[in-house]
Amino acid sequence: MAEGGWSYRDAGVDLDAAERAKEGLRGLVARTRDAHTLSGLGSFGGLYAVPDGVEGPVLVSSADGVGTKLKVAFLAGRHDTVGQCLVNHCVNDILVQGARPLFFLDYLATGAMDETVVTDVVAGVATACLENRCALLGGETAQMPDFYADDEYDLAGFIVGIVERERILDGSRVRDGDVVIALPSSGLHTNGYTLARRIVFDHMGLRVDDEFPELERSVGDVLLDVHRSYLPPLWPLLEDDLLHGLAHITGGGIPGNLPRVLPEGLGASIDRTAWTPPALFRVLERAGGVDRDEMYRVFNMGVGMALVVAADKADAVRTRLEAAGEEPRVIGSIMRGDGVAWSD
Amino acid sequence: MAEGGWSYRDAGVDLDAAERAKEGLRGLVARTRDAHTLSGLGSFGGLYAVPDGVEGPVLVSSADGVGTKLKVAFLAGRHDTVGQCLVNHCVNDILVQGARPLFFLDYLATGAMDETVVTDVVAGVATACLENRCALLGGETAQMPDFYADDEYDLAGFIVGIVERERILDGSRVRDGDVVIALPSSGLHTNGYTLARRIVFDHMGLRVDDEFPELERSVGDVLLDVHRSYLPPLWPLLEDDLLHGLAHITGGGIPGNLPRVLPEGLGASIDRTAWTPPALFRVLERAGGVDRDEMYRVFNMGVGMALVVAADKADAVRTRLEAAGEEPRVIGSIMRGDGVAWSD
Repeated sequence: MAEGGWSYRDAGVDLDAAERAKEGLRGLVARTRDAHTLSGLGSFGGLYAVPDGVEGPVLVSSADGVGTKLKVAFLAGRHDTVGQCLVNHCVNDILVQGARPLFFLDYLATGAMDETVVTDVVAGVATACLENRCALLGGETAQMPDFYADDEYDLAGFIVGIVERERILDGSRVRDGDVVIALPSSGLHTNGYTLARRIVFDHMGLRVDDEFPELERSVGDVLLDVHRSYLPPLWPLLEDDLLHGLAHITGGGIPGNLPRVLPEGLGASIDRTAWTPPALFRVLERAGGVDRDEMYRVFNMGVGMALVVAADKADAVRTRLEAAGEEPRVIGSIMRGDGVAWSD
Repeated sequence: MAEGGWSYRDAGVDLDAAERAKEGLRGLVARTRDAHTLSGLGSFGGLYAVPDGVEGPVLVSSADGVGTKLKVAFLAGRHDTVGQCLVNHCVNDILVQGARPLFFLDYLATGAMDETVVTDVVAGVATACLENRCALLGGETAQMPDFYADDEYDLAGFIVGIVERERILDGSRVRDGDVVIALPSSGLHTNGYTLARRIVFDHMGLRVDDEFPELERSVGDVLLDVHRSYLPPLWPLLEDDLLHGLAHITGGGIPGNLPRVLPEGLGASIDRTAWTPPALFRVLERAGGVDRDEMYRVFNMGVGMALVVAADKADAVRTRLEAAGEEPRVIGSIMRGDGVAWSD
């Protein structure tokens, strides 16, 4: 107890430090905002005008966290990428229902309020918001001493997007014989880190600064690769009604995610020989002695987004994606049944 | 390492348990939904149709956590109230801008996936959503072993509400001479728990099952009292345009929150003798030797919501609130200046 009685600061909560960290980000956050953003920082709730000209507007919302990828950020002392992973993950989650993002809010809970760390984390969030044309509308930065270690934090985010009711991707357009096209992931994205960390740090005995086997990059850099957003290459295809379905390949892999966007009575046949998982996944599989099917159930194995496209549109879609700098690859097709069958 | 290689379950993540917990809540969650809710559980994002008939619709959104009130829930082994606190806190945060809730998403991060605890927490969230006519549209339940202790978790939430553009409460209606009316809080709400826990558990040496001094209830029960929602008593007054401003009294107390809803050039004079803080606050102040002004900066001191009302409408507002079972109390008035001046 401080002399003369307790104060909130004595108890470990520094309200002024939180204010200073937020103040330092005001300019960056302001750049994410647009004409629909009616509120400034500091109001109780963020205000966002529903855009005009959307026929039968439907809001699409998703909540997510970064998971234990954060532990890698703590080990590497690098805090500017996890916010990007979070925003892009959320953007992808609503994109697969046909929605473009409107706004985002973050929840950051820390033990001690280290202004530099908070600023780096939220700067990552704001950077990705800007890239996805998504307003960073608000958020909560909570100081919870006794809860998180001084140099640790948790980070979660919430996104709201919009789609015209007639253009919602809900599986109803998917047909027997449609083609499944894969777009590459940019590493582990935000899934499977609990297993990956066990293998890399505990079993392989690597440290964050060591070189990752078969890759000429550090363990930290490889494991912190930013979870990419698929909005830029896919939005033009959505606007032109070229997609029957989209599956964001997150926890559960292709078998856990592709069936979520297929209608009753349809499944997918996927040929795992149609693409080569990046070296990262092969190293994890071999070093961890992980069963092959388990690998495909936990990790994205190099496929971050799966597109379901009419067979007669597949070439046009691939051509347009290649023109946008993507590397699309046909990995299978839709057929009667349910779930995912490996055809290899 | 498990015999024959690693699996995700060996690494501490039980995807099936998370599914089972969510499955058990399907019925309760379904009850929170309405005709605008277009998606079921399990889709990537939740779908919510923008309601018709709202002139110039503006979305109001807020993110919040429960803070270290969760520590009290852990000590008491009682997990069904914190979700209610979270939802009601968020409802109040958008209510003060004139908005009614549309939907809510939660983020629950745990060490181990204890199905009973997860079910209790989310049941609390769903119960409060139902009470506030707010759809529980989605959420994320993250298993983060090595991150949270097995029997601990963090809980955050995100709300989206709607208001007509012309009816946004943004301070512009507040006038010199307006009256400030207080509505009672239901305990500490979700603020000041780091300090309160230090005083109660460390300094006073109480345990969660002990009787709280001056109150014939246990420490756990007193500290876990549900943060109440002010939507039911205040919504009819908002619909009838009787309120110039509303301030949700959270961290920072009256001086930290009331000025946030006042326009430039206006402040408030508050008479602390106009109400008696409940015994809970007096015990904390005395036992902790906390400075009186610090008490009013950290805790709500018995005032959970402050209404700013035209002087000639104050009696009508009080009468209507009393008819709704509330105990409104005039505690001050708006005057030229800035911030809050204590008039006692």
